Amino acid sequence: MGDACGLGPELLLRSAAGNILPHTYVLFGDLEVLEFAREKLNLNLDLHPVASVKDAKPKRLNVFDCRELNRTDVTVGKISAKAGAAAVKYVEIATEHALEEKIDAVATLPINKAASRHSFPNFQGHTEFIADMCGVSDYVLSLVAPKLIVTHVSTHVSLKEAVNLVKRERVLSVLQMTHSAAKKLFPRARIAVAGLNPHAGEDGAFGNDEIEDIAPAIREAQRLGIDACGPIAPDTLFMKALAGDFDAVVCMYHDQGHIPMKLHGFHETVNVTLGLPIVRTSVDHGTGFDIAYKGIASTRNFSCAFNLAAKLASSK
Amino acid sequence: MGDACGLGPELLLRSAAGNILPHTYVLFGDLEVLEFAREKLNLNLDLHPVASVKDAKPKRLNVFDCRELNRTDVTVGKISAKAGAAAVKYVEIATEHALEEKIDAVATLPINKAASRHSFPNFQGHTEFIADMCGVSDYVLSLVAPKLIVTHVSTHVSLKEAVNLVKRERVLSVLQMTHSAAKKLFPRARIAVAGLNPHAGEDGAFGNDEIEDIAPAIREAQRLGIDACGPIAPDTLFMKALAGDFDAVVCMYHDQGHIPMKLHGFHETVNVTLGLPIVRTSVDHGTGFDIAYKGIASTRNFSCAFNLAAKLASSK
Repeated sequence: MGDACGLGPELLLRSAAGNILPHTYVLFGDLEVLEFAREKLNLNLDLHPVASVKDAKPKRLNVFDCRELNRTDVTVGKISAKAGAAAVKYVEIATEHALEEKIDAVATLPINKAASRHSFPNFQGHTEFIADMCGVSDYVLSLVAPKLIVTHVSTHVSLKEAVNLVKRERVLSVLQMTHSAAKKLFPRARIAVAGLNPHAGEDGAFGNDEIEDIAPAIREAQRLGIDACGPIAPDTLFMKALAGDFDAVVCMYHDQGHIPMKLHGFHETVNVTLGLPIVRTSVDHGTGFDIAYKGIASTRNFSCAFNLAAKLASSK
Repeated sequence: MGDACGLGPELLLRSAAGNILPHTYVLFGDLEVLEFAREKLNLNLDLHPVASVKDAKPKRLNVFDCRELNRTDVTVGKISAKAGAAAVKYVEIATEHALEEKIDAVATLPINKAASRHSFPNFQGHTEFIADMCGVSDYVLSLVAPKLIVTHVSTHVSLKEAVNLVKRERVLSVLQMTHSAAKKLFPRARIAVAGLNPHAGEDGAFGNDEIEDIAPAIREAQRLGIDACGPIAPDTLFMKALAGDFDAVVCMYHDQGHIPMKLHGFHETVNVTLGLPIVRTSVDHGTGFDIAYKGIASTRNFSCAFNLAAKLASSK
């Protein structure tokens, strides 16, 4: 459900009311908060509380009530330590269900990190939290658009640290995870790898990372049967990829992939964590405190995240 | 004229033939190469050799013959040490004319760096060469689109080095040069400054560059009367800027600005060097060896570079 003070409850209710969520799904959150949101948004919609996910009915808004918050705890559009702690709890319970294979996939809605840090001071984000619960340290943040997967060698670290994380083993590992995900969505799985430096280093003129780490990882991936090429100059790669030359792009740091993807298609780009034992997708936007509970936010990104979770689960 | 084996001669002749170059202009290059290109492209066009730029006539293709190459020196689409050396010479002569105020602005066409390095092993590019001739070390590479100027704290250095160049004094200096250029093109001159790290560091969670260097530079610029704001998360900034919220964006490294701008509008984005005593623009593409002398390359980017040079010269 995400942070109760932000867009999460609203996006779930409006998506359910609009019948844009196929399959059988269960909402992990607070029943009272959803009732509050339903009133606030004036929606005519049945909530279907379930004591166990086994009781979930297809195409209904099944709610697994985590009983963390009362309706009076919802401070619409304002940071709340209580709502921040509850949001983490929902993720924890949903992830446990996925690890126990009671559900096939998890799609998450936005958390407010500052709110969650009141109770969990080292909280870095959904992705890190879920990976930790899965006992996985070698995972990859990917952005998935309708025709392109973009993965990242590193994500939420300083750029200085990101530069140091561009090592042959990690690039190869990201290439393998990218290949495995790309195959599920785009059979040809043609992967391009970006350089780290301007013009991909111009033969070592501006940095040797391409020569020493990126190119060797690409050659090793090719030996393993992966259709990979590069390193390609970062500032021309996305034009080629978005024109259809590639199905996936491996980026060397967070903004190398996030800048072009956010520019290209904000509403349709979904966040997926690769390398986990469970399927996990997420919306690629924040809590939207300024527009929460107003009925004006687009449900498009959430429905993309939901449908991609279903698609990845079905090809598992 | 750029490298004789690439697109330069063709783009000049076809632009002149198409009457898309207003004002009085002089081509610094080789008469024999232009005659060769005219034949190759089957163009009916008068060349007007001038011994001095004073003899240039409006709207004619005035040619200052540098006498570096014969027509037999042109190896179309192939690297030539002789053509590479000549291309640097044209730039040198044009820049001298500009420094002596015999011409008002210089627009450059592509050089092949590998070709030029045969004779000038340390040749880094037009920009560095011209800045050096001007005796300027504190200059800025900017990309200018029809509605947005993007400048860079550093350009052709490794990303590791780029991170280290994000210092308060340099950011302030780039802000001042950006302001000065933006005022000439967009009277409101609203400048946004990108962060260096993902999410602009998220209050120091991923890097302190925003807190220690970027934000203090912005505050100082504001005190000097510059309409500057930031640091803004790099992956959302360009959506805002391209939607019209800002007239200029200061980027912290080459690809932070080049990735979104190349994706946004390849044909209309022009390269301008700020901080020089002369006006200098350039096309934002390479020599196009694979399509040179075929009559198929777009002249659009060159005509944008030419017209922007004229516009900046007139507001000097």
